[in-house]
Amino acid sequence: MIPVISVVGRSNTGKTTLIEKLVKELSGRGWRIATIKHDVHGFDIDKEGKDSYRHKAAGARMTVISSPAKVALVKDVDRDMEIDEIASGFISDADLIITEGYKRNTKDKIEVYRKEAYPDLLCGRDDRLMAVATDAKLGIDVPQYDINDAQGLGDLIEEKFLKGEVHGGISLEVDGKIIPLKPFISKMLQGSIRGLISSLKNCEDPGVIRIKISGSAGK
Amino acid sequence: MIPVISVVGRSNTGKTTLIEKLVKELSGRGWRIATIKHDVHGFDIDKEGKDSYRHKAAGARMTVISSPAKVALVKDVDRDMEIDEIASGFISDADLIITEGYKRNTKDKIEVYRKEAYPDLLCGRDDRLMAVATDAKLGIDVPQYDINDAQGLGDLIEEKFLKGEVHGGISLEVDGKIIPLKPFISKMLQGSIRGLISSLKNCEDPGVIRIKISGSAGK
Repeated sequence: MIPVISVVGRSNTGKTTLIEKLVKELSGRGWRIATIKHDVHGFDIDKEGKDSYRHKAAGARMTVISSPAKVALVKDVDRDMEIDEIASGFISDADLIITEGYKRNTKDKIEVYRKEAYPDLLCGRDDRLMAVATDAKLGIDVPQYDINDAQGLGDLIEEKFLKGEVHGGISLEVDGKIIPLKPFISKMLQGSIRGLISSLKNCEDPGVIRIKISGSAGK
Repeated sequence: MIPVISVVGRSNTGKTTLIEKLVKELSGRGWRIATIKHDVHGFDIDKEGKDSYRHKAAGARMTVISSPAKVALVKDVDRDMEIDEIASGFISDADLIITEGYKRNTKDKIEVYRKEAYPDLLCGRDDRLMAVATDAKLGIDVPQYDINDAQGLGDLIEEKFLKGEVHGGISLEVDGKIIPLKPFISKMLQGSIRGLISSLKNCEDPGVIRIKISGSAGK
């Protein structure tokens, strides 16, 4: 699984600005960053009249636009997707995912906090709070960084998620649901499947493996 | 693999209009349609100033926006992706993919042809040409449909791709490359992996299975 950090905070504290700085800092160090913006109110991205807009408006559940430099996709969903579902469904070849929002998830979090805006932290007792980016001095037992200190936070993220990590892992989704796997099962499945795949021609030393098995008729 | 049909034709013959009609027709019959628009010139979908635009502009390789009704994604790529790569990387829970463009691929094709626009077909000798949607009467050995006959083309597509199909199948991607599988290997892998997964708790009767195994350190 690609590691995930959620940048959270109340409205207008500067989440997007901090993410811009972190993305710039970490990309500059050579890491491939994907971001997820949680937009609870819905959004409008495609442009009326464009071909892709017309495909979608006619009833396509999903439309992809592909060009030599960029791929874009718009998909209908019937509920808010979890971060892990988004990651397993759409995100590959990234070293780190940074989310904006998702304060209720169980990923490691960085809170952006400005003293003039609110009296207290959003993540007061969240034990996944790994740092606060702030203009205040808070009497809490969590590392605090200046709100503009992308370098310091970049060091922290690199240390905790990107360096010396063995990136091995397996994600399993069955009929649209993420199946949590205990370490033993995860290891057994990875070993068995790697073994199967590596016996195929031209797959002797597989790195990242993605498999999709379709349902049988009627599924 | 999800079946793919490419709607091709010269400029301004009405490809998008025909796709709108086919999507409407087939969605109305209950099929889940995904579309891919091939845009060789590049496109601009995200809006300047939006948070997702800012993430991307700061250097994120990929940005996802997720809301309870819709998910959108913009990703940088370094070359034109193949249809199969797009399908395996991004498209799930669809019964059929209709592409606009991709005349050079090896998928089954429907050509849109208008007699006043050009003297001949784009896909003259393409043996994957399964039908022509046209306002002309052509002396060729390929089924011809009226350019507005979404119902007739819908019947053809349903017959050929959607009905009576056993939707079982496996797609395998290793380190970003699609690995073609012979029928025996495909069956063996599907059986082995289904067997492994169905022995897990709450996965006794798996339909669609998606697995991603990350590379080990340094991959």
